[in-house]
Amino acid sequence: MKEFRVLDREACAALDAEDPLRSFRDEFVLPSDVIYLVGNSLGAMPRAAAGRVARTVEEEWGKQLVGGWNSAGWYAQPLTVGDRLAPLIGAAPGTVVVGNTTSIAVYQAVAAALRLRPTRSVIVGDVTNFPTDNYMLESFGREIRDFTLPLDEDVAVVLLSEVNYRTGERYDVPAVTAQVHAAGAIMIWDVCHSVGALEVDVSGADFAVGCTYKYLNGGPGAPAFLYVNHPDAENVLSGWYAHAEPFAFEPTFRPAEGIRRFTVSTPHVLSFAALEAALDIWDRVDMRQVRAKSISLTTLFIDLIESTTDLQLVSPRDPAMRGSQISFRHPDGYPVMRALIDKGVHGDFRAPDILRFGFAPLYIRHVDVYDAATTIAEVLDKELWRDEKYTQRLAVT
Amino acid sequence: MKEFRVLDREACAALDAEDPLRSFRDEFVLPSDVIYLVGNSLGAMPRAAAGRVARTVEEEWGKQLVGGWNSAGWYAQPLTVGDRLAPLIGAAPGTVVVGNTTSIAVYQAVAAALRLRPTRSVIVGDVTNFPTDNYMLESFGREIRDFTLPLDEDVAVVLLSEVNYRTGERYDVPAVTAQVHAAGAIMIWDVCHSVGALEVDVSGADFAVGCTYKYLNGGPGAPAFLYVNHPDAENVLSGWYAHAEPFAFEPTFRPAEGIRRFTVSTPHVLSFAALEAALDIWDRVDMRQVRAKSISLTTLFIDLIESTTDLQLVSPRDPAMRGSQISFRHPDGYPVMRALIDKGVHGDFRAPDILRFGFAPLYIRHVDVYDAATTIAEVLDKELWRDEKYTQRLAVT
Repeated sequence: MKEFRVLDREACAALDAEDPLRSFRDEFVLPSDVIYLVGNSLGAMPRAAAGRVARTVEEEWGKQLVGGWNSAGWYAQPLTVGDRLAPLIGAAPGTVVVGNTTSIAVYQAVAAALRLRPTRSVIVGDVTNFPTDNYMLESFGREIRDFTLPLDEDVAVVLLSEVNYRTGERYDVPAVTAQVHAAGAIMIWDVCHSVGALEVDVSGADFAVGCTYKYLNGGPGAPAFLYVNHPDAENVLSGWYAHAEPFAFEPTFRPAEGIRRFTVSTPHVLSFAALEAALDIWDRVDMRQVRAKSISLTTLFIDLIESTTDLQLVSPRDPAMRGSQISFRHPDGYPVMRALIDKGVHGDFRAPDILRFGFAPLYIRHVDVYDAATTIAEVLDKELWRDEKYTQRLAVT
Repeated sequence: MKEFRVLDREACAALDAEDPLRSFRDEFVLPSDVIYLVGNSLGAMPRAAAGRVARTVEEEWGKQLVGGWNSAGWYAQPLTVGDRLAPLIGAAPGTVVVGNTTSIAVYQAVAAALRLRPTRSVIVGDVTNFPTDNYMLESFGREIRDFTLPLDEDVAVVLLSEVNYRTGERYDVPAVTAQVHAAGAIMIWDVCHSVGALEVDVSGADFAVGCTYKYLNGGPGAPAFLYVNHPDAENVLSGWYAHAEPFAFEPTFRPAEGIRRFTVSTPHVLSFAALEAALDIWDRVDMRQVRAKSISLTTLFIDLIESTTDLQLVSPRDPAMRGSQISFRHPDGYPVMRALIDKGVHGDFRAPDILRFGFAPLYIRHVDVYDAATTIAEVLDKELWRDEKYTQRLAVT
């Protein structure tokens, strides 16, 4: 095995001792035998989530019953939780609504964008978007172009991911937004892979969508969010929560003023409860510290892997150009990842050959990076992944 | 106060002692000082829900982390829970998908129906539908007609609620479905106010939608369901869960075979957990017994109220024509309901003058009906509702 060229484990531990975010790790449940580098897929569980969810189930549902819509604040959740999320994407209060899924938020944003640009018919996506974004674009039956093509006056709307789910590559949000606006089109950002990992600021865009179960640690299937920067935008999914007076039960739809017009219907209250526990942590986090630590962790990981293996880096080498995940290419990536997981290093595999590792700065330490890199080097050096037990495919990888 | 003409409290207790469903009440958390007649809005909490949700949070999310998508069955939930729900609406396995909200399921069903009838442009609703159904119909920008008008060859799709949310009136599902099919249109049933209250059978219709947080007791904001009886129907909300191979991450959409094509995206796992606890109860319930008890409870309630008050019955007198809720009209319904709630009888108010009472047969007893009717008679007889503290409006009633 090659020697590490940059830092030894003691130097990593010293960095962790000085880490201003170090105390946050204790607020998460992390299995002792796992290095969890999949926080970019499903964030770890905040310790407080168990009690927060139990309170919603036993104290709110169990004791307040239907009264909980008022007394426990369920009715207002899409907006109150939206206001708590807003600072994490550079948004003002009253511009973010929480609920449903990212795919549904994409649908709402694109439908609204098409109405705002009625004389333009083309939708622009990005072949590297997470597939669900592109699949939802297909729903509209319009011509879809890739962002690599020039933007012309036929383009109504552009949908891009700030950070790419496979490579970790990051778009320059202000520059691209300005370019899209200069072409007269509507800009929608998907921040699923950046929110909670870096200082997201989509305030200059028209719409943004994102999920809360990755770096934000809101729990499996936690509700998504939608940022709307057009007071006259219309919500095609005009459910009763979006009505000006939902409890007037009027026979025809009359949209609410403000961001509430982008709610749809009854919020998934139990899923909101866990997200609220996660946001109790984010209220105390300085996102500049998160970004600085993310760069430190990911740079260390690249240095260690490149000094000990022949893996080919997929993610940008310049930290300014990437999010908080690092991807390497390996032709037998699937069994390699299975072997790594068996040895306690949890990343994930994305076909055809991507090994993907996410670094959640709130609970991943420099020593975790060191230990993970050591295991990766061992698995590759000893070719442990060639064991046939690692080639069997699971339903979800 | 007038005398009750039908049963005294002892006779009610005797009926409860013979009730084949009587043991189910102990499986729910019910406040001791409340008669909860709002199970048609938000069902009571199954005692097992607390442990089931805690298991999902602490054992699944906390310990299995992202592996839970496989090991805890999260990924398959929209279909596995769909198969558990199917018998409650007369549907076969593989025809029901769970997730999102009723409003979104309505949108999917109507969009699919319009594609199945491309030469017809009119959508038929019902002015008495729960408003969100009608609001979602408006999303399509088509002509909308009321079901009271004749069905002609312009009609693509008809959306009706089996049981009306205000009056409890019930449509004859097979007869209306046959009428709509005879006119060449697609039939969509909303069973929000019937599922779990009576023997729903929408198997002859094209689509059905419903929620799981009313009589099914799935918890606040529990996921909705969508029944699809057209193998070639298309899902306009074509998210990645609906793709033939979601984890192939293909650049373009290719629909899954079967009901999975009507999933959208990541399920709200914590909300599913509570629903699964509720379904553990329904697995053991004979719906014929539920319907028989529902008729007994609602008939008793009408008899008691009519023998002791001057309230005007809104719901059908014929049990075959109604669901498991009873509505009475009172010109000062809002303060009357506030006063009733203050006295421990929880129903709800629907503008302009409807007092609405739901009877969930799994946990409401005949003695509860007797005690509720006694309180209602007292509040009206003594005009307790005239106290000005009851006139203040709350955000959600």
